[in-house]
Amino acid sequence: MRTMGRQLSLNAFLHDTGHHEASWRHPESGAERVGDITWYQDLARRAEAAKLDAVFLADGPVWWGTGHRPSNQFEPITLLTALATATEKIGLIATASTSYYAPYNLARLFGSLDRISGGRAGWNIVTTQGDEAAANFGQDRAADPATRYERAQEFVDVITKLWDSWEDDAEVVDRTSGVFVDTAKVHAINHVGKHLSVKGPFNAPRTPQGRPVYVQAGSSNDGRNFAGRNAEAIFTAHQTLADAQAFYADIKAKAVGFGRDPESVKVLPGISPFIGDTEAEARELYEEFNRLTVPAYGLKQLEGIAGISLSHLELDEPVPADIFGGAGNVLDNNRSRLQVVANIVERDRPTVRQLLHRLAGGRGHNVVHGTPVQIADTIQEWFEGGAADGFNVLPPLYPQHLDAFTSKVVPILQERGLFRTEYTGSTLREHYGLDRPVSQYAEQSAAADAS
Amino acid sequence: MRTMGRQLSLNAFLHDTGHHEASWRHPESGAERVGDITWYQDLARRAEAAKLDAVFLADGPVWWGTGHRPSNQFEPITLLTALATATEKIGLIATASTSYYAPYNLARLFGSLDRISGGRAGWNIVTTQGDEAAANFGQDRAADPATRYERAQEFVDVITKLWDSWEDDAEVVDRTSGVFVDTAKVHAINHVGKHLSVKGPFNAPRTPQGRPVYVQAGSSNDGRNFAGRNAEAIFTAHQTLADAQAFYADIKAKAVGFGRDPESVKVLPGISPFIGDTEAEARELYEEFNRLTVPAYGLKQLEGIAGISLSHLELDEPVPADIFGGAGNVLDNNRSRLQVVANIVERDRPTVRQLLHRLAGGRGHNVVHGTPVQIADTIQEWFEGGAADGFNVLPPLYPQHLDAFTSKVVPILQERGLFRTEYTGSTLREHYGLDRPVSQYAEQSAAADAS
Ligand SMILES: Cc1cc2nc3c(=O)[nH]c(=O)nc-3n(C[C@H](O)[C@H](O)[C@H](O)COP(=O)(O)O)c2cc1C
Ligand SMILES: Cc1cc2nc3c(=O)[nH]c(=O)nc-3n(C[C@H](O)[C@H](O)[C@H](O)COP(=O)(O)O)c2cc1C
Repeated sequence: MRTMGRQLSLNAFLHDTGHHEASWRHPESGAERVGDITWYQDLARRAEAAKLDAVFLADGPVWWGTGHRPSNQFEPITLLTALATATEKIGLIATASTSYYAPYNLARLFGSLDRISGGRAGWNIVTTQGDEAAANFGQDRAADPATRYERAQEFVDVITKLWDSWEDDAEVVDRTSGVFVDTAKVHAINHVGKHLSVKGPFNAPRTPQGRPVYVQAGSSNDGRNFAGRNAEAIFTAHQTLADAQAFYADIKAKAVGFGRDPESVKVLPGISPFIGDTEAEARELYEEFNRLTVPAYGLKQLEGIAGISLSHLELDEPVPADIFGGAGNVLDNNRSRLQVVANIVERDRPTVRQLLHRLAGGRGHNVVHGTPVQIADTIQEWFEGGAADGFNVLPPLYPQHLDAFTSKVVPILQERGLFRTEYTGSTLREHYGLDRPVSQYAEQSAAADAS
Repeated sequence: MRTMGRQLSLNAFLHDTGHHEASWRHPESGAERVGDITWYQDLARRAEAAKLDAVFLADGPVWWGTGHRPSNQFEPITLLTALATATEKIGLIATASTSYYAPYNLARLFGSLDRISGGRAGWNIVTTQGDEAAANFGQDRAADPATRYERAQEFVDVITKLWDSWEDDAEVVDRTSGVFVDTAKVHAINHVGKHLSVKGPFNAPRTPQGRPVYVQAGSSNDGRNFAGRNAEAIFTAHQTLADAQAFYADIKAKAVGFGRDPESVKVLPGISPFIGDTEAEARELYEEFNRLTVPAYGLKQLEGIAGISLSHLELDEPVPADIFGGAGNVLDNNRSRLQVVANIVERDRPTVRQLLHRLAGGRGHNVVHGTPVQIADTIQEWFEGGAADGFNVLPPLYPQHLDAFTSKVVPILQERGLFRTEYTGSTLREHYGLDRPVSQYAEQSAAADAS
């Protein structure tokens, strides 16, 4: 067994009964348990027992509302807080929107999670698509994508200042003099910008990780620029090695363009594995889940992604080649998920039903089926082939398919020296091999002292 | 031992090392532990062991920043989430501002806490004073108090609709048909108002309590009207029985004026008890803590409450009689805390140092010292004398003074039949004897069906 080479990062993306949209209909699913916090605590403990880097949660402040699967019953930051108290080492990543939160409130929530968990928080930074979400926040329609990313950048600058505003040694706790906090080490941020004005300082000491780990999801050109500049880990969806390689190269180049070390930016595509002891068994498992889907619901979701009506299509006829604009045509803002769909259509010419099955597994993420060795081979190929630094794993059915992954695939990766057998750190930054950032105000103070 | 008479409600108001502003300087304080979640988990478990109704947290999205005591190291909703997982029965009340949150976000946070805790969440609704908080949210200055209460009312209407928007039986989880949610039982709220526009519906099922318990703090006339209309429990500060009786009568009358049952509105003044086995011992404990205060810090805080400079005052001279406007003069909006101070000055003619000591214990709350029987007598006198339905207890030093209260005073109250010896319910509504509200949309549906 080799050790200490470049190591994979592996997250378990938690999602009610599993990532397959029909997973809850499976006779052995936890459909009745997803509103129970112990359901999620149990999943997080399983992921931690397998030494995964983190659990991950998606989010949107809106109800999508087709009624065909469980809603998220919990708000992600409170959910992760409950997971923090049920685990000791595993990282805790929640998605939250820069478009619909005030930075002071979000800084407090994630800062508190980082403290409660002893330095295990990660924030998946998204700008949130769609007018439905905007309508829950007093806006008739969502700002255009460029404006959302402009606000997102300002938001990240502000929240970073808030998290930096207490130098690490601001708390002196001097009983004799009566001084608890050295106020000279607590800095107003005095931000006045185009989208935000925030005076600061933050109202709590610096958190264990300095800042939560900055994760990002959103693959348009603006999204990739934002990621190259700010993200320490990037969640992305690709169906082919070639697409993933192109994305990976682009992100690393962008990071370098922003003066960053490309190794400090982890690219983590999604992968949704159906695992069987034989190829045939794995394929049959995949088919079994697809037979549980309700095509009318899948079509509704696809209409949501595409923004066009699809109700006239015949399920067993090929998808019209140019219905989604065709490959290469649609990769502008707000459309990276549709791009994935258009690429599938262009490349594989599926029937409508086949396309819905492809999307049912992972909403555009890479759904694979195979033996444990085949899955491990794919992971290694992407990892060593310049396509991934690790993966966000989307088990089709929880907990069974997480267990299959951790008990059958992870040991092969460990045997190959690609994945840890024990945690070597106790913060998410340590799991990902990222430095703890120095407060920008402490840096300024040090520079002033030196001059 | 009598049973089943009217019962006291008792909350433990958690606050870093204790409520006395110098408590952290005490040699046996937990000053080094207040950033550790286990500190708070331990306190909550102690309060639960004594069968208290709830733990309570104050909050403001701003750093007050005199540096003379610990800051809140945790954001309250995440903190209570961590306490939810460490306890089983005790209620969990957090303060949050209607001025600086978006209702959709706050609905999700408290809704999730209610679900994680199995129905133990309470929301202390405040409008938040001061321009410093406003400056963290893009506003040069805070809106005037009347406007803040106007927004607060609209906020409560909106968040109630969100929490009501899923009827209790909306989730059907029908594996055979593939229907998880009966979308006919999930209602858009379509609110368009002066301060807020929110489309809805909420994005998660109705929570165990239907809604968190609505608590309120803010004692101006606008505040009391708001409380009479919306609050199920009211946190308030009074120094004398007579003041508390007047407040109590006014609140109950206002509740009746809004068509409510006055028993569905609990009035809970603060009480900060120094407990000794003899009167002399209790008094010496009180003096010991006051000797730990730093007068310069106390003055700064008082300047904050009064909005005037006080640095010219001599510590051992009497406070000038009319410096705070005098009793009866200042009870307009935004000034209920200052009113308490003015009343002390008018009534007791303290020196500046004496006044600072009075405020050091509980920032205007009733600080008492005495034997366990004396404290129990005071509680009973207020409870039976039309001044209180229970108390928010502010132990000067945690955990020692909470333990003194629960081990010495609570048993006397139990012996007198005034306080439970076991929990009889498992939600905060059940502890307080409040009904679980029916969703307004379910009521409308039922009415439509009946007609
Ligand atoms: C893999 C992936 C996962 C995403 N997850 C979320 C999510 O959980 N919540 C959300 O609001 N947006 C999510 N997004 C959406 C993006 O944040 C963004 O709003 C959208 O993709 C449009 O930006 P883009 O064109 O840069 O991708 C995700 C995007 C990608 C590519
Ligand atoms: C006993 C009491 C406790 C309060 N606690 C808080 C608090 O924790 N956070 C907060 O922002 N405001 C708090 N307030 C302030 C009120 O919400 C309100 O902003 C302020 O008192 C002005 O309103 P009023 O004049 O109606 O009291 C409290 C008020 C009282 C009377």
